[in-house]
Amino acid sequence: MESLTKASMSVCPFVKSTSTQALRQMSQTSGALARQARHCPIVGGAVRAKAKEIRRSYSSATKPARATASTTIAPKAMKFIPPQFNANDDSGAFDYNGYLNHELHKKRQDKSYRFFNNINRLAEEFPKAHRAHEHDKVTVWCSNDYLGMGKNENTLKEMKRVLDKYGSGAGGTRNIAGHNAHAIKLESELAALHKHEAALVFSSCFVANDAVLSLLGQKIKDLVIFSDELNHASMIQGIRNSRAAKEIFKHNNLQDLESKLAKYPKSTPKLIAFESVYSMCGSISPIEAICDLAEKYGALTFLDEVHAVGMYGPHGAGVAEHLDFEAHLKSGIKNPEHLTTVMSRVDMVTGTLGKAYGVVGGYVTGKTNMIDWFRSYAPGFIFTTSLPPAIMAGCSASIRYQRSTLKDRIGQQKNTRYVKNNLTELGIPVISNPSHIVPVLVGNAADAKRASDLLLEKHNIYVQAINFPTVPIGQERLRITPTPGHGEQLSNQLIEAVDSVFNQLGLNRINDWRKQGGLLGVGVDDAPKIEHIWTDKQLSLTDADLNPNVVDPEINPLDVSSGVNA
Amino acid sequence: MESLTKASMSVCPFVKSTSTQALRQMSQTSGALARQARHCPIVGGAVRAKAKEIRRSYSSATKPARATASTTIAPKAMKFIPPQFNANDDSGAFDYNGYLNHELHKKRQDKSYRFFNNINRLAEEFPKAHRAHEHDKVTVWCSNDYLGMGKNENTLKEMKRVLDKYGSGAGGTRNIAGHNAHAIKLESELAALHKHEAALVFSSCFVANDAVLSLLGQKIKDLVIFSDELNHASMIQGIRNSRAAKEIFKHNNLQDLESKLAKYPKSTPKLIAFESVYSMCGSISPIEAICDLAEKYGALTFLDEVHAVGMYGPHGAGVAEHLDFEAHLKSGIKNPEHLTTVMSRVDMVTGTLGKAYGVVGGYVTGKTNMIDWFRSYAPGFIFTTSLPPAIMAGCSASIRYQRSTLKDRIGQQKNTRYVKNNLTELGIPVISNPSHIVPVLVGNAADAKRASDLLLEKHNIYVQAINFPTVPIGQERLRITPTPGHGEQLSNQLIEAVDSVFNQLGLNRINDWRKQGGLLGVGVDDAPKIEHIWTDKQLSLTDADLNPNVVDPEINPLDVSSGVNA
Repeated sequence: MESLTKASMSVCPFVKSTSTQALRQMSQTSGALARQARHCPIVGGAVRAKAKEIRRSYSSATKPARATASTTIAPKAMKFIPPQFNANDDSGAFDYNGYLNHELHKKRQDKSYRFFNNINRLAEEFPKAHRAHEHDKVTVWCSNDYLGMGKNENTLKEMKRVLDKYGSGAGGTRNIAGHNAHAIKLESELAALHKHEAALVFSSCFVANDAVLSLLGQKIKDLVIFSDELNHASMIQGIRNSRAAKEIFKHNNLQDLESKLAKYPKSTPKLIAFESVYSMCGSISPIEAICDLAEKYGALTFLDEVHAVGMYGPHGAGVAEHLDFEAHLKSGIKNPEHLTTVMSRVDMVTGTLGKAYGVVGGYVTGKTNMIDWFRSYAPGFIFTTSLPPAIMAGCSASIRYQRSTLKDRIGQQKNTRYVKNNLTELGIPVISNPSHIVPVLVGNAADAKRASDLLLEKHNIYVQAINFPTVPIGQERLRITPTPGHGEQLSNQLIEAVDSVFNQLGLNRINDWRKQGGLLGVGVDDAPKIEHIWTDKQLSLTDADLNPNVVDPEINPLDVSSGVNA
Repeated sequence: MESLTKASMSVCPFVKSTSTQALRQMSQTSGALARQARHCPIVGGAVRAKAKEIRRSYSSATKPARATASTTIAPKAMKFIPPQFNANDDSGAFDYNGYLNHELHKKRQDKSYRFFNNINRLAEEFPKAHRAHEHDKVTVWCSNDYLGMGKNENTLKEMKRVLDKYGSGAGGTRNIAGHNAHAIKLESELAALHKHEAALVFSSCFVANDAVLSLLGQKIKDLVIFSDELNHASMIQGIRNSRAAKEIFKHNNLQDLESKLAKYPKSTPKLIAFESVYSMCGSISPIEAICDLAEKYGALTFLDEVHAVGMYGPHGAGVAEHLDFEAHLKSGIKNPEHLTTVMSRVDMVTGTLGKAYGVVGGYVTGKTNMIDWFRSYAPGFIFTTSLPPAIMAGCSASIRYQRSTLKDRIGQQKNTRYVKNNLTELGIPVISNPSHIVPVLVGNAADAKRASDLLLEKHNIYVQAINFPTVPIGQERLRITPTPGHGEQLSNQLIEAVDSVFNQLGLNRINDWRKQGGLLGVGVDDAPKIEHIWTDKQLSLTDADLNPNVVDPEINPLDVSSGVNA
C-alpha cells in the first residue's frame, strides 16, 4: 500500500489530496479504494480488465457479476496512458463508460478539472472557516458573502422564527400550495428596492437568467439578443436556449454594440443583455449609455446586478442605483422626483439573494405586465418547488437590513481599497477596476492552483484559483473578495502571504508583465487610471445621511404580480 | 369607486379576488389602482390613452413624462375588448408592452391564467395553514410535503443548529467557497439511499433534470432520447435544450417504446427518460421492463423518482427500491447479496428534497464517473451558488429519519386508501392508480377552478385545481394528496366537502362518465383493476422489521465524487 501511495503521489490528484491515514483506512476496508480505482482514467483500464476476468470466472455461478476488482494495481498501469474510448462495448452498444472516462481525462489534461475545497464558514468566527477537521481553520478571502450577511443575527433570527412557525419547506410550486406571505413580502421588498413595479423570485439567479432570457427569445418572434462577451454562463445558457439570433459585442464597448444594433431596423425586436459588475475582472458597465442606445434602437435592457446588489447605491440596489446616488439617498424608498433615474430606465434587473444578501435564491424585477408574463410562461418558475418560507423571510430581512445602513457597504469598499493599494505597492499585479473585486493576475493554470494551494496549506488563507473556462487561458488569476470583516490585521496577513507566495513560486510581478508588454491593464503604462465607483465623499457618509423612510417601506402585495390572490 | 368595483366584479379577476376594503384603500392612495389598471388588458387601452394625453401636455415641462393615469376609468372601457397589439409603438420600435398584454390576455382567454393562493402552512398545526390573515385557517390537501416532513422536529432542530454555527448561506459556488461538509454528507446520504456510487446536489430537481439531460444530449454525439409522453416539464426542457434527436413514446407503453428503440442500430447512443410516479395521474412506470429494453438496445436509463423518494421502498429510496422490497428490507443500507436489483440497473436517478423530504433541492445519483462528469461539465451545477449548509443539513436529517422508519410511509398509504375508497363509494370520479396521488376528474377548467374555490371558501379545504397546460384540456382535475397527518376525521371532512361541491356544481360522477363512454379509466367497466404498489402485507410491517443497520450508515466522503478534496 505504502509504495502504491508513493507511486501515485506524482500523477494522481486524488491520492495527492487525500491524507495517508485516509488512504490506509480505505485500503483496509471493503474495496473502497479499488472501487475508486476502476474509474481512474490512468489505472482504470487495468482494473476493469481484471474485473472482467473475475466476472467471467463467476459467469456460471449463482452470484451475479459484480465488479470486485483486485486491490493490487500493476505498477505498469501507473503510467499516464490516455483512457481507451472505443465507440462500442462488448455488447455492441455505445461505450458510455469509456466515453465518460475519456471526457474526464480531457479535463485533467487541460488542467480544467476542478478540485473542491471543503470550507465550512463559521458564523461566529467570520471570516474564518474550518476545513475537514474542526480545528483546521483558515481565513476565507474568496467568498461571495461580500458583506458577511451570512452571519447577520437579524437574518438568522428571522429564519429560525419562520422555521419554527412554518416549517422547513414550501411544500409545492407557487401555483400548488407553495405561494405564501413570505413570497409576497420578498417580491414586494425586491420591487421596492429596485423601484420597479414588480418582482419574481426563482430558485437561483442562474435559473432566473436562464428562464427569462430563454423565454424572451423563444416567444418574441425575430428577437435579436445583444450580449456582452463577458456575460455569465447563466446568461449564455439562457440566450443559447432561447434559440434567438444573437450578436456578441466586445466587453463594455459601446461603439461595437452600436454598430451591431444599427445592423437591424428599429422595428426589429431587440434585447441588450449585460451585467453591472463583471465578477472575474471587476469591471463595471456603462449602464446609462447602454440605455441610451437601447432607446435609440428600440431595444429592451436586461441588466444582471448579481454582484452589485447589496453592494452599490445608498440602499444596496446596485450600480444602477449608485449612478443616481444623491437623488436616491435623499428620496429614500420613493422614486426621486423630477428625475428619470437609470434604475427606472432598465427594463429588467436580475439579482441574487445568495451573495451580498447572504442567503440563496434569485429574482427579476420590471414592469408588472412583464413580470406577470414571466410568472405565467416560464417553465423554470412554474414547475419547481418554491424556496422555503424561512429562506424567503431571511432574504427579506437581509435586504431590509442592508437598505437601512451604509456601514457594511462602506466598510467593504474601504477594505477593498486597502488591499488593492497595498498589494499594488508591493508590485503584485492587481487587475485595476472600479469595483469591490481584487483580481490578482497569475497567468497560467498550474501556477494559479499552486499559489492557491500554498496560501491554504502554508498561510491558512483560502483564495480559490480561477482557471479556464471561467477565465480565458493565460489570464488565470486569484480572485480576492474583502468584506467589512476583513480589517487591517487580516488584510496585512493576506498581503504578506500573497507577497511570500509570489516570491516562493517566482510569479510575475507588475514589472515582469510590463517587460512582456502588459496584460489586462497590468504593466501597461498608459492604461487609463480607474477610479472606484464609490467616491471618497460617499465613503464619508454615515447612516444618519439616509432618509429614514427607507427603514419601513409600505408593502403592497398587489404590486407583486397582477392577478395574484392577496 | 363602489360602482366601479361592482362593474368590475363580473369581468375582472383582480377586483374579484381583492377585498372591498383593500380596493377602497388603494383607490385612496397614490394611484396604486391606476397603476394596476394600466396593465389591464381590458381597461388598459383607455388608461394608456389618457396617460399619453397627460404626458403630451407635460412634454415641454421640466418634470419628465411619468404615466400618472387618471383614477377614473370610463365605463365603456369595461367591456371585454382584446388588447390591441401593434407590431410597433409610436417611436417605430417593437411594441413590447402591447405584446406582453396580448400574451397575458391569451392566457386569460384560454383559462390557463393562474391565480396563486396565499397559503401559509403552519408547522405546529399540520396540515392546517392560514391564508392572508392568521385567523383564516384551512386544511391543506394538495401539498407535496407528502409525509409532513416540513414540520419534523429532528430536521428543524438540525437546520437551526447549522444556521447558528455556519450561517444562512453557502457564500459561493461549489468550486469557490461553497463546498463544505454538509454538501459532502448530503451527497453521501443520497448515494447510500439509492445504493449508487455517487450523487450530486442541484438547486432543485428542475435544474437537475434540465442540466443532466441537456448535457447528455449536447455532449454525446448522435444521442437519441426516448421520452415518455407524460414526462415532467423539467425533463421536456432538458431534452429540448439538449437538441438531441428525440422519440416520444406513449405513456408507460413498452411496445411503443420498443418499436421506437428498434429503429436505431444498437451502436447508436440512446437514453430512455422516464418517471417512476407520474404526479398528475398517479401512474407508475414498468421500471424493470424498461431496464430490460435498455439493455437489449444499448440505452442509458434516466429515472425521475421525484414523487417517489421518501414514499416507496423500505427506506424511502423510491419505486425502484420498492420493486425489491423484501431484499432491501433485509439488507438495510447494504446492497442485497446475490441479486441484481432494479435500483442498481438504473443508470441515473433524479430526486427532490422538496417534496416527501420536506425541504428544498434536487439531485442525481449514478456511477462515480458519470456523476463526476456532471460535476465537471454541467453549467447549471457549476455556475450557481450552493444551497445553504442549513438546507443541506436539514435534507440529510430528513433522509436519515425517513430511512429509519416505515410508519410515515405506511400511514400515508393507509390514508390514501381511505380517501380513494370512500370517494369512489360516493361515485366521485377518482382516477384509479397504484400510488399515493388521488386525482379527481372534473373535466373542464372553469369547473375545476370553481370546485377548488368552493372547497376553499365554503369548506376551508385547499385543493388546487389542475388545469391546462399541466394536464390536457378536458382532463382538468382536483389533485388530492393525503399525508400521515390526514387521519379519519380530516378525511371525512374532505370526503363530505367534495361530495357537497360535486352536488352544488352538478359535476360528473362516475356514472355520468360511464354514460359518456368513460375517461382515463373512470366509468370504464372493463378497465383493469389496479392494485396499490404498497401491498397489504407491506402495510402491516413495523419499524422492528427494518434492518437496524439503516440507522447509522457508514459515510465515506470519497464516495461522493472522485477528485474532491476530503
